[in-house]
Amino acid sequence: MDLFADIVPAQAMGIKVSRDWKHGIELNAPLEKNLNDKGTGFAGSLSSILTLAGWALITRELQESGIQADVMVVESKTAFKAAVTTGFNATCETTAAEISRVSRELETKGRSRIELDSEIPDCARMTASFAVKLKPSAA
Amino acid sequence: MDLFADIVPAQAMGIKVSRDWKHGIELNAPLEKNLNDKGTGFAGSLSSILTLAGWALITRELQESGIQADVMVVESKTAFKAAVTTGFNATCETTAAEISRVSRELETKGRSRIELDSEIPDCARMTASFAVKLKPSAA
Repeated sequence: MDLFADIVPAQAMGIKVSRDWKHGIELNAPLEKNLNDKGTGFAGSLSSILTLAGWALITRELQESGIQADVMVVESKTAFKAAVTTGFNATCETTAAEISRVSRELETKGRSRIELDSEIPDCARMTASFAVKLKPSAA
Repeated sequence: MDLFADIVPAQAMGIKVSRDWKHGIELNAPLEKNLNDKGTGFAGSLSSILTLAGWALITRELQESGIQADVMVVESKTAFKAAVTTGFNATCETTAAEISRVSRELETKGRSRIELDSEIPDCARMTASFAVKLKPSAA
């Protein structure tokens, strides 16, 4: 399933899942759909893929546990270190313990929070805090 | 002149200057080009328009002083307070003193920094730090 099918700008930016592993995910975007005035990757695209890496990771991990939840970013901090000059990847990882904590809190309170670090290696890093809520139909 | 003509994702998101005044700017984007899976504004689009508000303001202010400079975001911090459910505006303001400082530093050192706050009223706020460098041809 394409996690980003209903996210219009993610489609425009050509963002796709390129790799995934236990508690980790990598997204990819082509440069040409994300060019800025300087011929490098647009900062808004870098923010978008870094946010989506965290969003996709927690959304997918919960789905795999049979939990349907809405995930929303509530705060993020980004450092842009170097320009992106080719297609780019963003990665995000978490731990089994973190997923267990979030699952438990959803079960008991219907909501949770998680902080995730994502990065475009050598180019940009984000720390983002996500609010997670059970979908009304699943509550 | 459309400041965003060469920024591919800004075109895809339909981001335009909707209003400007002395040392201030407002950008606008339609909801339909920025929808997420929840039918509200995609967080990456909010980050993009908030970043572009600061970028466009300093770029335009310098152009009006006859200075051609490259402006790059180096750090940003964003708080997402409420979902965007219609077309949305982002505003950014600075002061004559800040523009004078940046202009003076560009003249003496060829580079400067500026921190700018931008906001989508009631929905999101960003503080971003921009690096400003004289364009090579203008140095």
